[in-house]
Amino acid sequence: MGMTMTQKILAAHAGLETVKAGQLIEADLDLVLGNDITSPVAIHEMEKMNVHGVFHKDKIALVLDHFVPNKDIKSAEHCKCVREFACKHEISNFFDVGKMGIEHALLPEQGLTVAGDVIIGADSHTCTYGALGAFSTGVGSTDMAAGMATGKAWFKVPSAIKFNLIGKPSKWVSGKDVILHIIGMIGVDGALYRSMEFVGEGIKNLSMDDRFTIANMAIEAGGKNGIFPVDELAIDYMKEHSKRDFIIYEADEDAEYEEEYTINLSELKPTVAFPHLPENTKTIDEVGVVKIDQSVIGSCTNGRISDLRIAAEVLDGNKVADNVRCIIIPATQEIYMQAIEEGLIQTFIKAGAVVSTPTCGPCLGGYMGILAEGERCISTTNRNFVGRMGHVKSEVYLASPAVAAASAITGEIVAPK
Amino acid sequence: MGMTMTQKILAAHAGLETVKAGQLIEADLDLVLGNDITSPVAIHEMEKMNVHGVFHKDKIALVLDHFVPNKDIKSAEHCKCVREFACKHEISNFFDVGKMGIEHALLPEQGLTVAGDVIIGADSHTCTYGALGAFSTGVGSTDMAAGMATGKAWFKVPSAIKFNLIGKPSKWVSGKDVILHIIGMIGVDGALYRSMEFVGEGIKNLSMDDRFTIANMAIEAGGKNGIFPVDELAIDYMKEHSKRDFIIYEADEDAEYEEEYTINLSELKPTVAFPHLPENTKTIDEVGVVKIDQSVIGSCTNGRISDLRIAAEVLDGNKVADNVRCIIIPATQEIYMQAIEEGLIQTFIKAGAVVSTPTCGPCLGGYMGILAEGERCISTTNRNFVGRMGHVKSEVYLASPAVAAASAITGEIVAPK
Repeated sequence: MGMTMTQKILAAHAGLETVKAGQLIEADLDLVLGNDITSPVAIHEMEKMNVHGVFHKDKIALVLDHFVPNKDIKSAEHCKCVREFACKHEISNFFDVGKMGIEHALLPEQGLTVAGDVIIGADSHTCTYGALGAFSTGVGSTDMAAGMATGKAWFKVPSAIKFNLIGKPSKWVSGKDVILHIIGMIGVDGALYRSMEFVGEGIKNLSMDDRFTIANMAIEAGGKNGIFPVDELAIDYMKEHSKRDFIIYEADEDAEYEEEYTINLSELKPTVAFPHLPENTKTIDEVGVVKIDQSVIGSCTNGRISDLRIAAEVLDGNKVADNVRCIIIPATQEIYMQAIEEGLIQTFIKAGAVVSTPTCGPCLGGYMGILAEGERCISTTNRNFVGRMGHVKSEVYLASPAVAAASAITGEIVAPK
Repeated sequence: MGMTMTQKILAAHAGLETVKAGQLIEADLDLVLGNDITSPVAIHEMEKMNVHGVFHKDKIALVLDHFVPNKDIKSAEHCKCVREFACKHEISNFFDVGKMGIEHALLPEQGLTVAGDVIIGADSHTCTYGALGAFSTGVGSTDMAAGMATGKAWFKVPSAIKFNLIGKPSKWVSGKDVILHIIGMIGVDGALYRSMEFVGEGIKNLSMDDRFTIANMAIEAGGKNGIFPVDELAIDYMKEHSKRDFIIYEADEDAEYEEEYTINLSELKPTVAFPHLPENTKTIDEVGVVKIDQSVIGSCTNGRISDLRIAAEVLDGNKVADNVRCIIIPATQEIYMQAIEEGLIQTFIKAGAVVSTPTCGPCLGGYMGILAEGERCISTTNRNFVGRMGHVKSEVYLASPAVAAASAITGEIVAPK
């Protein structure tokens, strides 16, 4: 029996010729990631374990992005803890408060994640890097601690689901709609502990940013990881952003998939996940009248340059509705800069939107757009659990930047005309 | 005995030919201001008083700027309260979450404050508008409530201190250095309940932004208000920003001043207020070695376009020091936009600074740059009380944008070379 792409990467990193689903392996890590919420816990775990060194100062990335610039004394103390650790261990890839951006947009942009890598991160959306053909997955802070200390991690080799993407999405359908459609189809536990392997000729019609969004939300279907084959577009991206060598692993023809789905991208419509689960999806024509108080465009899921371009295209010449706050957050400083150069930020401000420095802020109810009781937000973020963005009686609707921008103008959930 | 500029404005608004210091008067209000922290208290006071209307829907300004975009559920609820009140009473000058900017930069920019006005605001830095020759002062939320209901307020006519400004400040000396020098000289209660009347030929060498900064911090010397004569520059500013008529009041030649100071602007040096009071000033050559962790450039005191221009001039081609967070906050969306057009924001990002959406955030320990224990911040804000920006064991040093920017580069408090 052959191996999936994920299984091949894991086998190579475990020093094994082959692995099979369910097997427990120990794999070498190419990168261990933590942020300002999870790293302090990992650092304290290392202290408790009496570990005083890290396995490789260049293979750890510490990104302060969640509650920064420090939203309160506690977040300031957490950042200080990580800063002191990074300094002590001379961590090369330490990204201080607000200087660089949101981890899952930042790491590929900075060339720290490439095809063939095994990456763990103490953040559930670490699965993002599967867009580049890496195996990457979220872990707890204790695993992060062990990873920083040893450069290794235990995995149960995941079984797989194949998603065969065909066709070309229409104008206002993006990666976000693809993954929301999939989560709506299989449910938030539909891919539990399994790898979501995306294949098919439709992939060529998805930008890298679309693929990052899709891989990013694999965890919202319970997936261990999401992964894409490495095509010319992915290679070009890595060559542009990274100096690291990469290895392209291809699935064997006889690789085993527990389930297979074919999705015709040309048939998809803009899709919205209703409260309070990402699986509660409706296509835009099923939404009905849903008034909103806030629109958030950004996050590790949809804060990349193409997301901002789409939002600007929709907002250009329009005004955010009077009773709506539209908060737009470029995911990294580089994206922010690019957006200024392209005039996108100017379009946002003219439209009456707020442009924030890169931060995870509102996505997880941190700051920069928290909801009061009864308020509704359309958001390009990745989770709409109860109270995720504020009050337990507030509501979050997940959608693409196109829908979030169009809804900011009308004050109710709509797709662009 | 003649009247000061302040006294003349108050007399006119009380319908009296003359007033004298210490007299209790009831004056008509041209504008009543509140923000997201103080307005909800005032609104609840009005409800308690069973008042169901406002005196004039065009003469109330409600600005959501302190803890917005909503930093937490509580701030979201406060904003919602103000929004509902503004909607119910059709308040013309309601500025919603993050859409416009920081009140004391916003109101003059939007033409809502002009010479001859009497303005109260439930925010201590309401004294800012004295730069335009208005009488404006901070009040409590209860006074704000009464002001919104009746359009009147009681005042004890303040006695006055005259500050005769002469000479021209050198390159790196700004309005901030002038007011810090004055507060250092007379102390934080040096002008208690008195009006600070700025006069003299040196005023022509101060930009409007310099004057806003000086008037803004009158309260930091305990002043009831700070006020400038209305010259061509001020008239040009009002004509550019406002459609309202204005009235120029001039002090009588025999007006009484309890104290008089002459300040030669050409002799001033960049000045820094050490923890934990604005009166703890040192000139830059007396500072010694003070390492910093953070630099904040912004606020109602120093977030205007000329402040950003100076910061950009200093930061251009340089990098923020590795262990320093440099947080730059344009005070309004218009300033933000102008700063993009002039390439200032791009300079900040290239230098490794964070650019935030307009907010009071860090100044009062709200969010967007809170300090951990033991951390030090150089800041262009207006107060450095114990714990003002975070942990009670953190420290805030007040300075000009030039000094804050130069310090961000070196990692210790310095003036630009």
